[in-house]
Amino acid sequence: MTALLIRDIRPMGGAPADILIEGGRIARIAPAINAPGVAVEDGGGAIAVPGLVEAHTHLDKTLMGMGWYANAVGADLGAMIDNERAERRRLNHDPHRQSMRHALALAGNGTTHIRSHVDVDTEAGLAAIEGVLQTREALRGIVEIEIVAFPQSGLMIRPGTADLLDRAMSLGADLVGGLDPCGIDRDPKGHLDTIFDIAERHGRGIDIHLHEAGELGAFSMELILDRTRALGMKGQVAISHAFCLGMPDWPRTEALLAALAEQDVAVLTTGAPSREVPSVRRVLDAGLRMGAGCDGVLDTWNPWNRPDMLDRARILAQKNNFRSDADVALALHVCSTGGAEVMGVADHRLEEGRPADLALLPGTTLAEAVATGGPVFLTLKGGQVTGRNGHPVMEAP
Amino acid sequence: MTALLIRDIRPMGGAPADILIEGGRIARIAPAINAPGVAVEDGGGAIAVPGLVEAHTHLDKTLMGMGWYANAVGADLGAMIDNERAERRRLNHDPHRQSMRHALALAGNGTTHIRSHVDVDTEAGLAAIEGVLQTREALRGIVEIEIVAFPQSGLMIRPGTADLLDRAMSLGADLVGGLDPCGIDRDPKGHLDTIFDIAERHGRGIDIHLHEAGELGAFSMELILDRTRALGMKGQVAISHAFCLGMPDWPRTEALLAALAEQDVAVLTTGAPSREVPSVRRVLDAGLRMGAGCDGVLDTWNPWNRPDMLDRARILAQKNNFRSDADVALALHVCSTGGAEVMGVADHRLEEGRPADLALLPGTTLAEAVATGGPVFLTLKGGQVTGRNGHPVMEAP
Repeated sequence: MTALLIRDIRPMGGAPADILIEGGRIARIAPAINAPGVAVEDGGGAIAVPGLVEAHTHLDKTLMGMGWYANAVGADLGAMIDNERAERRRLNHDPHRQSMRHALALAGNGTTHIRSHVDVDTEAGLAAIEGVLQTREALRGIVEIEIVAFPQSGLMIRPGTADLLDRAMSLGADLVGGLDPCGIDRDPKGHLDTIFDIAERHGRGIDIHLHEAGELGAFSMELILDRTRALGMKGQVAISHAFCLGMPDWPRTEALLAALAEQDVAVLTTGAPSREVPSVRRVLDAGLRMGAGCDGVLDTWNPWNRPDMLDRARILAQKNNFRSDADVALALHVCSTGGAEVMGVADHRLEEGRPADLALLPGTTLAEAVATGGPVFLTLKGGQVTGRNGHPVMEAP
Repeated sequence: MTALLIRDIRPMGGAPADILIEGGRIARIAPAINAPGVAVEDGGGAIAVPGLVEAHTHLDKTLMGMGWYANAVGADLGAMIDNERAERRRLNHDPHRQSMRHALALAGNGTTHIRSHVDVDTEAGLAAIEGVLQTREALRGIVEIEIVAFPQSGLMIRPGTADLLDRAMSLGADLVGGLDPCGIDRDPKGHLDTIFDIAERHGRGIDIHLHEAGELGAFSMELILDRTRALGMKGQVAISHAFCLGMPDWPRTEALLAALAEQDVAVLTTGAPSREVPSVRRVLDAGLRMGAGCDGVLDTWNPWNRPDMLDRARILAQKNNFRSDADVALALHVCSTGGAEVMGVADHRLEEGRPADLALLPGTTLAEAVATGGPVFLTLKGGQVTGRNGHPVMEAP
């Protein structure tokens, strides 16, 4: 792997410096580095941060490039699930092509790591898993993709789904997913026993969608904690959304946060504007790992989300009533290093010796970059330029 | 005023048509209008909607064009108020220049009408009012500006403020403002008696900021309703934010909404992501007039808001969990015709005979325009082009 010198960037918005990359890693960060013969990129005074991390999305769902999807479904969860299954067929949705478009758009916008839930159900079988596995291979070295086998249409209520999840893990999915054990599956014990069993057999972690609010979500969370403890899965479980942690009963959520911290259960958030959500400050103060994601992008669910973690940092910060520059920088941290920690990428920092996974952001400060938004000036993955001015270097199908 | 023919637009996202403008009004909407000798603008297939309406902002607060404002204050309301007064002086803030920048940026983004609160306090006196009055004059024919004299720093707690409000009205402010009669002024009776008295003497309406949540806000709202009834001010009062209407006590808020409807009190919202807010659907179903605004833009308060009502429609729609195309169109309606109704502009519709106040939006459907965002292709005010591709035609100082 060749060396690269990036001139005139400002690490984390600080004083100007250069970054020398060798062997895919950050070799040096210093002003006016002298490196004769090394290829040079002009950073143009941009802010350098660790690559952005999309830690909760659905690469297999997007309709990007397929024309505007007129949504007539509204906001009922069951109806949205059924609608999506039907529309996948009607639109002849290709999960490989679509996940390529989505993942590359993210790379163009500064993203170096993605955790994607991917649907598994008794109608489409493993087609989505196969498509995204193919994308993961095609984009190796461009963006790192973790795949969560996700029973979007329910598990206990759709016999045969557990076998499909099991096969998805054998095919190469990284984590076992789950979904509202009470709200959707109506059988929390059955649901959780099943996914923990599959995870244990494959020696893999879990990332479960938990939209359940208030006490219902807290109950499901307790059942998740019970199993995490019993199976010795400390540090291997993440809960996505975790809306119940946003309920106003602070003593209750304080105790839940302490229990999650004790089992090193991570929390992933989208900062959902219409819901009660976990407070970034409280989750981090409790010592939990926390990442963020844009959720599905331009799909049958809603038209709001963009493949853009700077946009997500803005949404997350607004939801958390972050106003000061320091607080805004914290939101950006969750959208980068925080998400990497959830994905088990421990060294995702702008430091010498770390992998050269970087995003160069426009703006004078981190807060301005988040408030103003992209385009991201440059994305680098392992020292290779993967995005320029908001566009991926590799062309999407 | 000369005539103008706009070719190839789609009214409200419908079938392609042309719009003929004569004497500042929409003379005809029809396919392939024949109008020899009339100047032509190519609409490029854009969606035509009534001009966007910024119905809750603060033109006198923005720091646009003054460099990034590093916010170290955080989110305490009292601290933010004190900080702003101090920073206005330190930064040598010019309310005329800044309000010109802000209002023109809005015009570039499709806005034809603005309601702006403008600070009045015992430190800066009427400087902000005078600056924005000057802007209102300078932009006559470009964007219509309504001014609310606003006691941002408190009224009863800062003796002398009532006199200043009174003088602001004499100078030409359109409405009397107010602010959290309990939360900030600690004297709801004194506060409300004072602003209603000033409004009555000047024969003007009221637009009061009410951030107070839950029962406290409901109490203040009842006091506002009492005075609206007693003084026969039906239809002349608006409540901005009205967070208390977002509390989960539905029977209580149902009764409040009915009382507001009975007095034709309007509601203005920003869709504040971090707060409980009035539901768009519930407010409109109750028969109330409702508009929306971006609030202050790039000021000492927070870095989030953009001078862009399409961006606001996206925030508002997300907060309301709007997903279907029909619901998204409703959010856009609130950001256009809805706000105009609050401002007393009753004929703000895309119909023959109405004023030619228009925005041409990119996208194939209204929902796509909101989800994707600008730049707005063209803004027209009274048939004159005031914005092109997201930029105002008139240069800002």
